[in-house]
Amino acid sequence: MKYGIVGATGRVGKLLVKILKEENEKIGAVMFNGKQTINFDSDTIITNDAEELLKNCDIAIDFSAPIATENLLEAAIKNPKPLVIATTGLNEHQKNLMIEASKKCPILYATNMSLGIAILNKLVAMVSEKLRDFDIEITEQHHRYKVDAPSGTALTLAESCAKARGLNLKDVIVTGRSGHVGPRSKDEIGVFAIRGGDVVGRHTVGFYNDGEFLELHHTATSRETFARGAIKVAKWLINQKPGLYSINDALGL
Amino acid sequence: MKYGIVGATGRVGKLLVKILKEENEKIGAVMFNGKQTINFDSDTIITNDAEELLKNCDIAIDFSAPIATENLLEAAIKNPKPLVIATTGLNEHQKNLMIEASKKCPILYATNMSLGIAILNKLVAMVSEKLRDFDIEITEQHHRYKVDAPSGTALTLAESCAKARGLNLKDVIVTGRSGHVGPRSKDEIGVFAIRGGDVVGRHTVGFYNDGEFLELHHTATSRETFARGAIKVAKWLINQKPGLYSINDALGL
Amino acid sequence: MKYGIVGATGRVGKLLVKILKEENEKIGAVMFNGKQTINFDSDTIITNDAEELLKNCDIAIDFSAPIATENLLEAAIKNPKPLVIATTGLNEHQKNLMIEASKKCPILYATNMSLGIAILNKLVAMVSEKLRDFDIEITEQHHRYKVDAPSGTALTLAESCAKARGLNLKDVIVTGRSGHVGPRSKDEIGVFAIRGGDVVGRHTVGFYNDGEFLELHHTATSRETFARGAIKVAKWLINQKPGLYSINDALGL
Amino acid sequence: MKYGIVGATGRVGKLLVKILKEENEKIGAVMFNGKQTINFDSDTIITNDAEELLKNCDIAIDFSAPIATENLLEAAIKNPKPLVIATTGLNEHQKNLMIEASKKCPILYATNMSLGIAILNKLVAMVSEKLRDFDIEITEQHHRYKVDAPSGTALTLAESCAKARGLNLKDVIVTGRSGHVGPRSKDEIGVFAIRGGDVVGRHTVGFYNDGEFLELHHTATSRETFARGAIKVAKWLINQKPGLYSINDALGL
Repeated sequence: MKYGIVGATGRVGKLLVKILKEENEKIGAVMFNGKQTINFDSDTIITNDAEELLKNCDIAIDFSAPIATENLLEAAIKNPKPLVIATTGLNEHQKNLMIEASKKCPILYATNMSLGIAILNKLVAMVSEKLRDFDIEITEQHHRYKVDAPSGTALTLAESCAKARGLNLKDVIVTGRSGHVGPRSKDEIGVFAIRGGDVVGRHTVGFYNDGEFLELHHTATSRETFARGAIKVAKWLINQKPGLYSINDALGL
Repeated sequence: MKYGIVGATGRVGKLLVKILKEENEKIGAVMFNGKQTINFDSDTIITNDAEELLKNCDIAIDFSAPIATENLLEAAIKNPKPLVIATTGLNEHQKNLMIEASKKCPILYATNMSLGIAILNKLVAMVSEKLRDFDIEITEQHHRYKVDAPSGTALTLAESCAKARGLNLKDVIVTGRSGHVGPRSKDEIGVFAIRGGDVVGRHTVGFYNDGEFLELHHTATSRETFARGAIKVAKWLINQKPGLYSINDALGL
Repeated sequence: MKYGIVGATGRVGKLLVKILKEENEKIGAVMFNGKQTINFDSDTIITNDAEELLKNCDIAIDFSAPIATENLLEAAIKNPKPLVIATTGLNEHQKNLMIEASKKCPILYATNMSLGIAILNKLVAMVSEKLRDFDIEITEQHHRYKVDAPSGTALTLAESCAKARGLNLKDVIVTGRSGHVGPRSKDEIGVFAIRGGDVVGRHTVGFYNDGEFLELHHTATSRETFARGAIKVAKWLINQKPGLYSINDALGL
Repeated sequence: MKYGIVGATGRVGKLLVKILKEENEKIGAVMFNGKQTINFDSDTIITNDAEELLKNCDIAIDFSAPIATENLLEAAIKNPKPLVIATTGLNEHQKNLMIEASKKCPILYATNMSLGIAILNKLVAMVSEKLRDFDIEITEQHHRYKVDAPSGTALTLAESCAKARGLNLKDVIVTGRSGHVGPRSKDEIGVFAIRGGDVVGRHTVGFYNDGEFLELHHTATSRETFARGAIKVAKWLINQKPGLYSINDALGL
């Protein structure tokens, strides 16, 4: 099984190359934007042509930018190969291309490749539904440079919790408490964004009731988790029929 | 719906009475061993006869001792009523009686009535199975007077994790590490018993991999959680057909 | 050493009585407002006269209301005895009375009698000063019925942190983050109020930097901690000269 | 201020170079063993001669091996410059050389350069002494490849706690609990080693009493923390008189 890496010199792409080498996997071809900042094996083809990349791999993993992903999808329509895509910010046209390509080859699309977050999302929905009397409060923590709050992942977790109770997150989200706020209302869902240091990502979803509470916590210790998640789902995807898959499909969730 | 309470002056029984009063529920009859240490409403029948108790309630909750539970089961065979039983240490004869009685009335039997622990047990089995590469380590914490270690609940959680991976807990459990222990083996499951202060119960099941980890945590803030759990399952049990149920059935897990 | 308890049937007063009995300490006299809801030993004098109370004890502990405390202070000026006072909401006149009384007898005044919180307050000031590059974020958690946010204790901890860096808390406090907030500013101090279940009190002060973080955490597992703290400082106070003391003096902090 | 780096291509040395570049600090000279695996600025002198290194820097930071440190110390006796030394495993001769050299130049020696751990060590000693009734339990967590347990840092923390109570750690340490262990004894100190994933280092020192507990926690999010700690103490050391200093001196602890 030969891998093709799109965005091979990017933040996660670089880690993908490192991990695949460590695990003695073959990298058939790589594609990236700008100058080469890392070394590849001599039998790895370096290209800026998506068709060339697909010809030289059995599966492609893409942590790049929308334009590169668009090229990849167009090439895959002509020369179908399984694709793991983690690029964010795709527009409508690019999403439609993905649907079209998925008729010819298996494609797994996920903007967070952490397996732990995928399963956490499943768990919190289950707890939210089964333990309806429990108050839900979420805290997330990221490094001091993150500019938006709460994190997209925290909002996804909150949405899973809200949906499981038939609530609309928009109506029940609380992102701060200050002053005489009165007793907590039953349905509100607190989502607090803590910032500091170089924390890669910590998320805690808490369920609190009289007499007991549950706290489900995830920490990303390094960005390698996203690379490792992509490799794991790639190994699953290569045996699938054409179609568009989520990370939950790969995990059997 | 009138409740009957067996063991009404015990540690949890007392809390049951308090909570049912607070929620304006009716207590039809109570049964207990030894002298009366708390007050009951004037229309609550105080008895030491299980048949009398069953006649005066719609459902009985039992946090007592094996002998009292045996009497209750014998009475229920003659005069079937739904039973929630949390008594620990039942012998074979008593367990058989329970099976016999459950042919005539719905019986829910659980030695830990915490809903949070019930669901946690479910969650850790799921994570253990789905994320097989993750190392499992469990910590539990209880007050300084607890004499056995690790806690029964921690062992149950560890067993759920082991079973989900086709492992035998006995073969993989590690309860301490000291000296030159070498690198961690893939299958071992650490179970550490922390003791101190008056902690009612804290359990954390951690799943650790390169790049990320999940920690699923439960805290019992008071023994009320066991009383509340029993009331919740009682409300579900009263609508069931005869049979022997677990707390998971009540939660739809 | 005989104790006098002011507010002996209150939420904490009741626990004081229970703990002193368990520890075989003598309760010389008690004072309370309203009807008697708990039992006292036959040699304990029940009174509503502060002078009578002081005559029948070696030290008084007061978890009551401002008026009762005022009476106690007036009585202590005439009949000086060591006083441990935990009453909140004293007005200027009452505070002045306390200063006057402290010229005749040792008085320890603290609105939070938890030893752990007292020492935590000391620790966070030290860390804040020594590790100035670290970002400070505080979370506090209380039960769902608490009406104000953040907790007084969290604000005190935040003030200790701010003061240690020469900052004014008012200028740097952040109680929620939502939307495009931009990167974290160096001086801001996050204080987040989580609400849910029946949590008595949890406070975490975190210090985050590139490469590492410290989190100093306190949990109150029951209100007994306030009663136990008062007894501990009482045992210290009885050997002190007249004067006004803080909980830090008792702990030698 | 020009830095000299001994062990510049090692695990932490590499990070030192990276961080100094990012902060636009000047690296006057570097020394390392084996082949060059990273790039240095053109005005940085690469040498394997400790005297040459010292001539081309204002302060040297050393994360190397005992032999290289021995050479550095001998060179410093002839050509005194401030030295920050983090090398572990020094023998008696090398330690004596350090003492001799410290008569001519300021030397700071520490085998853990994390500022957070240094201050944590101070805090736990203070809490252990002030809150003598509290039960002490320590957990540490490291990656799955760590071969010894508990970690040296956990043992140092435990020793600080024991010493503050006049106890000998050897007599009171407990590294696991299993079976019918009986109630916790007052003096014992639990130290539990959790292993899994790629965790760089987490240490928690807990103090538990009736009604409350304190947990003081440290996480190293990356090995950069050791590099950053060394740079911070270097900036302090350059202004000191000859002498042998600890990390606590630099922090004013």
